Amino acid sequence: MNLVVALSGGVGGAKLALGLSRVLPEGALLVVANTGDDFEHLGLSISPDLDTLIYALAGLDNPETGWGRRDETWSFMAALAELGGETWFRLGDRDLATHVERTRRLRAGETLSAVTEDFRRRLGISARILPMSDDPVRTRLLTGEGWLDFQHWFVRRQCGPAVRGIAFAGAGQARPQPEVLAALSGGRVRAVVICPSNPLISVEPILAVPGLRAAIRGCGAPVVAVSPIIGGRAVKGPTAKMWRELLGEAPGAAAVARRYGDLLDGYVMDEADAVEAEGLRPRVALARTLMTTLAEREALARAALDLADSLRA
Amino acid sequence: MNLVVALSGGVGGAKLALGLSRVLPEGALLVVANTGDDFEHLGLSISPDLDTLIYALAGLDNPETGWGRRDETWSFMAALAELGGETWFRLGDRDLATHVERTRRLRAGETLSAVTEDFRRRLGISARILPMSDDPVRTRLLTGEGWLDFQHWFVRRQCGPAVRGIAFAGAGQARPQPEVLAALSGGRVRAVVICPSNPLISVEPILAVPGLRAAIRGCGAPVVAVSPIIGGRAVKGPTAKMWRELLGEAPGAAAVARRYGDLLDGYVMDEADAVEAEGLRPRVALARTLMTTLAEREALARAALDLADSLRA
Repeated sequence: MNLVVALSGGVGGAKLALGLSRVLPEGALLVVANTGDDFEHLGLSISPDLDTLIYALAGLDNPETGWGRRDETWSFMAALAELGGETWFRLGDRDLATHVERTRRLRAGETLSAVTEDFRRRLGISARILPMSDDPVRTRLLTGEGWLDFQHWFVRRQCGPAVRGIAFAGAGQARPQPEVLAALSGGRVRAVVICPSNPLISVEPILAVPGLRAAIRGCGAPVVAVSPIIGGRAVKGPTAKMWRELLGEAPGAAAVARRYGDLLDGYVMDEADAVEAEGLRPRVALARTLMTTLAEREALARAALDLADSLRA
Repeated sequence: MNLVVALSGGVGGAKLALGLSRVLPEGALLVVANTGDDFEHLGLSISPDLDTLIYALAGLDNPETGWGRRDETWSFMAALAELGGETWFRLGDRDLATHVERTRRLRAGETLSAVTEDFRRRLGISARILPMSDDPVRTRLLTGEGWLDFQHWFVRRQCGPAVRGIAFAGAGQARPQPEVLAALSGGRVRAVVICPSNPLISVEPILAVPGLRAAIRGCGAPVVAVSPIIGGRAVKGPTAKMWRELLGEAPGAAAVARRYGDLLDGYVMDEADAVEAEGLRPRVALARTLMTTLAEREALARAALDLADSLRA
C-alpha cells in the first residue's frame, strides 16, 4: 500500500505531480499522463503533457509560460520562419531535442513508454511517468468550423471556435499502458490522485482508454480528485470556456466532482469554493489549491494524500 | 550563350560559386550541387553541400567552420546530449530548421530540387542551386573497417580509416536533375566551371549520374576546372589523404587535371603550381586560387570565366 498513482494533464497537473514527488518516498509515485493532446507537427511526434510533466519533475520547466523549457533559445523558430515553415506552434531549441529524439526512437520501433522512461532516468526524475497508452489517442473538438485537432484549436486558433463536442479518436482501440494496469491491479496502491487538470480534455482521455477506469475503481485504494476550479474559475487554460460551451453551465468545483461521478471517493476543493461542498457525494477536504510556490504544491499534495488516507482508515 | 553552369561540392566550391554569383549578371548562374554526401540522421534528411552553397550564397555561412550557419546557437545539441541522443554530427539550432523543414517537405512528396529552389528564393539568392539528381545517391567508402557511409567516415571517424575504394550508391539509377539537363542542352551555356572541390567525392558523384558527363561534354561550351590543390596541398578537407590512399600518389594540381581527363578544355591552377602546367592537355591559366577574401573569390571567378571565354574565341 505504498504506491500513489496520479492522473495528469499538463500545467496544473504537473504542479501537483511535482508536489507529490517531493512529499512521497522515492519510487512511490507513478504519474499517468494524458496523450490525447499529442500530435504530429513538422514531422515530429509531440507529446505536450508528457513533456510538461518531465520538464516540471526535472526542474527544467519554464515557470513563465507553463510549457516548454526554461533558459530556452528560439533560433530554430526564427530560421524556420525565414524558410517559410509553420510557426504557429512554438518549439524552443532545447525542447526540440525532446521531439527529434523521441520521433527518431518511435520510428525505430520503441514505445512511447520506453522513450519516456529513458528520458525520465536521464534527467534524474525518480517518479515514474508513463503515457496512458502506447497507442495513439487524439483529442478532436467539434466546433462551428467542423472537427479540429486539439492543438489546432488550442494553439493555432487560440481556443476561439466554440466547442460543441469532444472525441478521443483511437481511444476505443487503445490498450492501457501495461505497467499502469499492472500497478493498479497489484494491490499496492495507497491512493489514486486525479490532478487539477481539465477534466474534459486532460483526465477524460485517460479514463476513455478501455480498462483504465475500471482498473482505477477496482484497485482497492481511495480515488481523490483535486479541483481545477478556484472560486468558480479555472486557473489557466480553456476549461471554463469549454465547459460553458459544451455543457451549458458554469464550471464550478462541485460540477467537476459530479462530472467524475462514482469514480471519486474524495475531493479536495479550494477554500474559496466551500459553499459548493454541500451535498457532494465524495468526502470533501478544503485546502488552498492555488500552487504558486513549491511549498504550496507540497502542501496540496499532502492534503490530497491525507484525504485519501482518511478514507482508507 | 549567357549561362554559367558550375559543379560544386561544399566549402571550396561554395566560395567560388559565391564569386561567380557576384561577377555574373542576375540569372546567369546555375550551380549543380553534389548530393553524394547527403544522409539521414536523427530522422532528418541532411544535404551538406546544398546547405553550404545556400548559406554561402545567402551570406549566412559560418566563415570559421566552413559549414553551418553564422550566429549559430547550440541549445538543441546540448539538450540532445542530456537525453542520450547522437551528437557526433553537430546540428546548430538555426541549421536545424533547414533539415526539419526539408525533411517535412520531402516526406510530403516534394522533390529536393523544389525544396532547394524555394529555400533559395526565400533567402534572396539570385543564382539557381540544384541538386545533381532528385534521386538518392550516397557516397560510400571502402576502408579497412569495411564500407562506411560518407558522413560516418568524414565526421564520426574524422577521416581516420584509410580509403581503398569509393562507391556512389544509387548513382546508376539516378536521373539527372531535369532543369540541369535542359540547361546543358539548351545551347545557352557560356561555360561549365568545375569548382575547386574534392574531385573524388564532390565532383565525381555529379559526373556519375548517367547522362550528366555527356551533357556537359556536349553542351558546346568550354569546360574549365579550378584546381583544389595549392602548392601541392588541399586547402581543406580530406582530399590529399584520400588521394594518396586511393591512388597511391601525391595529389598534385596536374594529377587532378589528368583525373578529369577529356572533360576539360581549360584548367585554372594556382601560381604556386606553375611547374606542373607543362604537358597538360587543357589550356592552363595561372591565378591565385586561395579564396580568403570576397575580392579573391570574385577574382578567381573572373579568371575562370576569362579562360573559358578565351577558349571559345
